[in-house]
Amino acid sequence: MTDGVDAYVDDNQGRFVEELKQFMRFPSISAQHARDGDTRACAEWLKGHLEGLGLEAELVEMGGQPIVRACGKGRGSKRVVIYGHYDVQPEDPINQWESPPFEPTVREGQIYGRGAVDDKGQLFMHVKAIESLLKTEGELPCDVTFLIEGEEESGGDALARYVRQARDELRPDAVIISDTAMFDENTPAVTYALRGIGAFEFTVRGPKHDIHSGSYGGAVANPALVLAQILAACVAPDGRILIPHFYDDVAPLQEWEHRTMRELEFDARALARELDVPQLAGEPGYSPLERLWSRPTFEINGIYGGYQGQRSKTIIPACATAKISTRLVPNQDPARIRNLIVEHLRSACPDTARLEISDFALSPPVVFDVSDPVFQAAREALRRGFDREAIFIRAGGSIPVVGTFVEQLGCPVVLMGCGLSSDGLHGPNEHFALNRFVRGAKAAAHLLRMI
Amino acid sequence: MTDGVDAYVDDNQGRFVEELKQFMRFPSISAQHARDGDTRACAEWLKGHLEGLGLEAELVEMGGQPIVRACGKGRGSKRVVIYGHYDVQPEDPINQWESPPFEPTVREGQIYGRGAVDDKGQLFMHVKAIESLLKTEGELPCDVTFLIEGEEESGGDALARYVRQARDELRPDAVIISDTAMFDENTPAVTYALRGIGAFEFTVRGPKHDIHSGSYGGAVANPALVLAQILAACVAPDGRILIPHFYDDVAPLQEWEHRTMRELEFDARALARELDVPQLAGEPGYSPLERLWSRPTFEINGIYGGYQGQRSKTIIPACATAKISTRLVPNQDPARIRNLIVEHLRSACPDTARLEISDFALSPPVVFDVSDPVFQAAREALRRGFDREAIFIRAGGSIPVVGTFVEQLGCPVVLMGCGLSSDGLHGPNEHFALNRFVRGAKAAAHLLRMI
Repeated sequence: MTDGVDAYVDDNQGRFVEELKQFMRFPSISAQHARDGDTRACAEWLKGHLEGLGLEAELVEMGGQPIVRACGKGRGSKRVVIYGHYDVQPEDPINQWESPPFEPTVREGQIYGRGAVDDKGQLFMHVKAIESLLKTEGELPCDVTFLIEGEEESGGDALARYVRQARDELRPDAVIISDTAMFDENTPAVTYALRGIGAFEFTVRGPKHDIHSGSYGGAVANPALVLAQILAACVAPDGRILIPHFYDDVAPLQEWEHRTMRELEFDARALARELDVPQLAGEPGYSPLERLWSRPTFEINGIYGGYQGQRSKTIIPACATAKISTRLVPNQDPARIRNLIVEHLRSACPDTARLEISDFALSPPVVFDVSDPVFQAAREALRRGFDREAIFIRAGGSIPVVGTFVEQLGCPVVLMGCGLSSDGLHGPNEHFALNRFVRGAKAAAHLLRMI
Repeated sequence: MTDGVDAYVDDNQGRFVEELKQFMRFPSISAQHARDGDTRACAEWLKGHLEGLGLEAELVEMGGQPIVRACGKGRGSKRVVIYGHYDVQPEDPINQWESPPFEPTVREGQIYGRGAVDDKGQLFMHVKAIESLLKTEGELPCDVTFLIEGEEESGGDALARYVRQARDELRPDAVIISDTAMFDENTPAVTYALRGIGAFEFTVRGPKHDIHSGSYGGAVANPALVLAQILAACVAPDGRILIPHFYDDVAPLQEWEHRTMRELEFDARALARELDVPQLAGEPGYSPLERLWSRPTFEINGIYGGYQGQRSKTIIPACATAKISTRLVPNQDPARIRNLIVEHLRSACPDTARLEISDFALSPPVVFDVSDPVFQAAREALRRGFDREAIFIRAGGSIPVVGTFVEQLGCPVVLMGCGLSSDGLHGPNEHFALNRFVRGAKAAAHLLRMI
């Protein structure tokens, strides 16, 4: 059966891609204050675009980056919130991009640029679904409120504060988000669980400035070495996290989840080849999928201290810093894990150096009941959009605001992502396949009709 | 008894300092190819200056930075080589300098700038000693050959190759060097032992580019974490080096050395205060002076990988690098230690990541017999120049070419440094007290007359 919405999406996809390029040209890097102007300009553009579709749009100011809120009335009584974020990750390492990160380029059916998939491209599927419904049916099937934040990549809490404040006004039946991945390029998926996250930075301080490693070496703690020793005290060489009580609250998988993971064809060697690592790694006793979906992690995201120039400089550095993050799984409590980590870092730091710790973000893990009708509807909508069976999966990433939605709105949050983990999100050459963008837009429209 | 040379140094010290400033203005950073032009210009200036004093000077080209060689005939039959280096350490961290590193400035009796003490200022004491002898006595007391290299701070081997090639022509009775420190500001010293050095860099490589720590975290080795684990496997938290057989060949101190170290007033708390560290650190079972002078070290000089910007970026970095160096003591063999380190790094790297190792420099430790007449003369020359008793000490630093002088020329190498370890060498705000510069110049002239 030909569907008017599907046909509209097909007929207009060239223009949709040009509009997406406009959206992606804004270097809306929320973590960098130097980009604050660009980030706000991006929000303004998005507000204007949504108004152009006939929605009532506004910028909600909560301090920091504004939230783009846009509402459309529907013929039914149901209400949904569609969430997305217009901010993006920093573009470095800049020299590894094949085309400039903020000059979106289409090559071989993929659109390249920062934000292509995370999350501008995926958010735009929903924007274009709304346009398609309005243009073909004259109205929306349900009330829709877009809540599009600008601080997802920098751990801001503006949206969380807004949701707490507007909870009685919002009262949605579901929240819909596309900021996750399909299982593979042939298998669309609804994600029913996300890992939480805690992000920290710690600095080991030694002498007040860099000192000569010959004159002082042997009598003064080397901050970079202390940093390495503290980090090594957090994770064993075999991958087990050594922070006391870290695993205490980790919930085991349910039987159907074990069965699904066993049935899925996960090719560890193909992934190792794709990433160009000698082999996969990780905690003993768990399969790669279990490690990715249901086990917590402790990662170093960045490390630095001392001389980084050519050849050598024989100093003891004044200080050294590690940016670390931990992915959390049900039922780990972010605040408790934060305290365990801070306590462990402090206990691992000798009294010959000083330790400073900052935290950036904490968000809880979430898991939903897939028997909820909206989850079943989302699977069917993806099947129609992609013309393939969709499955239920977990994801290793974190969407900080999902925990807030669960807590404040008490409704299911449907994660119907159309990305692939190989899309280069957070790294160089981020990209998104245009056919997934198009199918995702169709699925997004179908879901609104089935809510 | 008034000495003509002493009086000449006193009378001309204002001009000497202005000339030293000219010498220090060249950013002759041999480790940075971008500064190659400045480094060569510095060598040219020095050659011209030595010619101006009446020496026969030339630039010896060995590939890389040129060697400044300058010769003067003496009335006696003795021959000395005076060694120094005109290259300097990189200036970073640039934002911690109170005055620009290459705009030398005198404040409160100290000259500030990169190279003030290491080694332009100290080398210039000898240059001005030669000028003073020539101007007051019309001739030199012995044959003098300056060999001034431009690759000391970058581990170059041009001078070593030149010395091997010119050994039969040089045949000195002694080599004189001022590139070390006094025991403290009231105690001039002749250094009779130096630590050797090995400098390396290693990189742990994981995925071909930075990847999302949510999508992949738990299934892929984190190169920065592997780096930290490898480094922690090299040094125990208590300071002991864990590389197998590393300490095998370390020679114990002689009884007179133990006695001297016990007698010297070394104030560990004052040093901790000066460096602004909570307390000193180091290998258990040894005093701070023993650790600095007679025990080997393993230091991280620089460490980097992943995101270094503001706040957080949730990636697994593609790679992470550590610049490391080890100080060696008699009778450790640099080549053997290098092999032990490389073997240990390789064995500590899991097969889930790749390891790349480069080496930059290897130089042996040295120790001299202080009963040699030239060492006794040097102590007496320092006593006259400073009007204080001088002592014999070891030093924690390394002067790579000293090993070559010992091996190729077979003569004693007298280290009569006038620096202090608190002079900020290799760090920001490097400085040298003008009164030590002046006294050192007098001592340098006295030594030549006593050889």
